[in-house]
Amino acid sequence: MSFRASLEEVVKSVSGSVACSVMGFDGIAVETVQPDAQSAADLDVGTALIEYGNLLSQLKQAAEGLKTGQVTEISVNTDKLLTIMRMVNNDYYVVLALLPDGNYGKGRYALRLAAPKLAREL
Amino acid sequence: MSFRASLEEVVKSVSGSVACSVMGFDGIAVETVQPDAQSAADLDVGTALIEYGNLLSQLKQAAEGLKTGQVTEISVNTDKLLTIMRMVNNDYYVVLALLPDGNYGKGRYALRLAAPKLAREL
Repeated sequence: MSFRASLEEVVKSVSGSVACSVMGFDGIAVETVQPDAQSAADLDVGTALIEYGNLLSQLKQAAEGLKTGQVTEISVNTDKLLTIMRMVNNDYYVVLALLPDGNYGKGRYALRLAAPKLAREL
Repeated sequence: MSFRASLEEVVKSVSGSVACSVMGFDGIAVETVQPDAQSAADLDVGTALIEYGNLLSQLKQAAEGLKTGQVTEISVNTDKLLTIMRMVNNDYYVVLALLPDGNYGKGRYALRLAAPKLAREL
């Protein structure tokens, strides 16, 4: 299954999905699926994901010195957008952006399933 | 109800709770409840919370320029510890640390209820 098919499977299974991307820690999106391009554009989701990615990358480094283990998942939620980021490997992560009434629990679950599939393709 | 009573209510209602704190964005814990002091110490939860708090504070600033609205909640999860941070006001946030098998959804819910109560007391 291609990247794109894996991401499409995530957005199809999670209600309220606005965008799902595989991104590198350099801030570049490898592949993005946007089922609702209009709300993604209105919210400027692309810019938000890059900003969050920068912080994820810092947090990943900061966590290396801690006893709490490797960071596997980070979520940043605002009143307009929920985002869940999950590590794929040392260089890439997958991120799902949802509307506030989207299915957050299902989103976490879908990324947990998708991450190892994506890792095999990278 | 005091700070401490609000935090105790959170840890009592959420299974797998390791620590619940009200913290300032300066990294200083105002009040902390640790129902399981041993696992909190083993995981060095205090240090992790301060590190995460630093990043939360950066993220809060970064998000001010975005169209996605104010950051209300951030979660950082590792294989050993789940943490959920929720803004209380401009200076303080409340954070709950859970074991990986803790009730994450209930934790988010409990902090959503606790934050406005804590805000009234600060």
